[in-house]
Amino acid sequence: MNITIIGTGNVATRLGVALKAANHTIVQIIGRNAQTGHDLAQQLNCRFDDSTQKVDPNAELIIIAVSDNALENIIAELPVTTALVTHTAGSMPMSLLQCFNNHGVIYPFQTLSRQKEIDMTQVPLLIEGNTPTTTDQLGKLAKTISNRVTMVTSEQRQQLHLAAVFACNFTNHLYAIAHRLLTEKGLDFALIRPLIEETAAKIWTLPPHEAQTGPAVRHDDKVMEKHLKTLATAPDLQTLYRQLSAHIMASHQKK
Amino acid sequence: MNITIIGTGNVATRLGVALKAANHTIVQIIGRNAQTGHDLAQQLNCRFDDSTQKVDPNAELIIIAVSDNALENIIAELPVTTALVTHTAGSMPMSLLQCFNNHGVIYPFQTLSRQKEIDMTQVPLLIEGNTPTTTDQLGKLAKTISNRVTMVTSEQRQQLHLAAVFACNFTNHLYAIAHRLLTEKGLDFALIRPLIEETAAKIWTLPPHEAQTGPAVRHDDKVMEKHLKTLATAPDLQTLYRQLSAHIMASHQKK
Repeated sequence: MNITIIGTGNVATRLGVALKAANHTIVQIIGRNAQTGHDLAQQLNCRFDDSTQKVDPNAELIIIAVSDNALENIIAELPVTTALVTHTAGSMPMSLLQCFNNHGVIYPFQTLSRQKEIDMTQVPLLIEGNTPTTTDQLGKLAKTISNRVTMVTSEQRQQLHLAAVFACNFTNHLYAIAHRLLTEKGLDFALIRPLIEETAAKIWTLPPHEAQTGPAVRHDDKVMEKHLKTLATAPDLQTLYRQLSAHIMASHQKK
Repeated sequence: MNITIIGTGNVATRLGVALKAANHTIVQIIGRNAQTGHDLAQQLNCRFDDSTQKVDPNAELIIIAVSDNALENIIAELPVTTALVTHTAGSMPMSLLQCFNNHGVIYPFQTLSRQKEIDMTQVPLLIEGNTPTTTDQLGKLAKTISNRVTMVTSEQRQQLHLAAVFACNFTNHLYAIAHRLLTEKGLDFALIRPLIEETAAKIWTLPPHEAQTGPAVRHDDKVMEKHLKTLATAPDLQTLYRQLSAHIMASHQKK
């Protein structure tokens, strides 16, 4: 399959590298950033173009891997094409692409970095197509680079994206708070590594609701008061501590 | 060293098993639960007693591994002893034990389960003693079972315990919310596993503050509004989403 990739960022790079390694032909990279565009084109052994007007007429698949904010403009700019046109955004519906006869979504459900190689076979690729044929085409393509290909609707993909905000973006922010608390007292952040890793590992043998530990789920008011006192100089963290503890207590009362 | 362990729960079991494996002599288990007490005593090949009044006079080290709530009562009940008396609680100061000439703390900084074996050599043991001699004794003992022994003050230990609430208890609660969101739409929770694991792994190459991704740190209002709409039927999650997003935005503005 001849593939044009629009975008030169993290997702464009990781998908491009994996597709090339699986012997697909990347014919073209299109992007606004000439520097990263030329670099990626060189890496994928294809040509670089700086305008969506220059889409290769031989492209059979166009993958738009740009930021959510830029996506709608790029779609509006694209010339009419019979190629299968896809985007890669978790929070955007497939219907944005309905002006193209053949369209769909390939959403890599992982945090990707241009700089960091990743074993793409382990990255869940969430697929949606506008017809059984396009779904089938995208599924087959996805399976050449990942062992975790799943068909999901736009609604399900939106829910996965939302769940990821809780389980990953918010979680990472809590790690940053722990980092702040430890370094403040001259403690090595690495001390908490086994605990973070065990917490992330345990939920695959025990559902997270059942795995809950800590003062809030035990309603241990004494310890919570002590923690809030320790946070006296950080009122923002006191507030967050109270909010999260209250939600844990409410969630475990219902059961 | 002859060791008496008071308590028959998760910490008592994991410390007891590791100490025995390192060829220390557990002379006695003391606990209120005769069933778990006899089981643990059998596992450690020692005797079981049901009262703190029956502390073995040959015990050189007494480890009190009970819940935070029970700790002060147990300390008050203990007879006078020249043994080194320790507790294992993250949030309790060493000074609770000051009625004993020799005292200290051994705090395993990990979530432990009676039922689940763990490689104790990788569990950070945080040590504090009331004199250089007791600190030294506890440090040497701890190093026979763990490769991660660190001396910390009561104040530092309290901070570590607080950081663990953010990085582990609150994090686990966010995993539970993701579980709820996915299963609600018939999606397999395992889909999010690579993302959870990568999020927990990434912070050891990039500090978590710098690793932050997601709509809040990008101030992507459109995506956040869409997420809040998706949560219309779960006002508790809407509130939590707003609170955490606001804290991320505030934390990243300051820089």
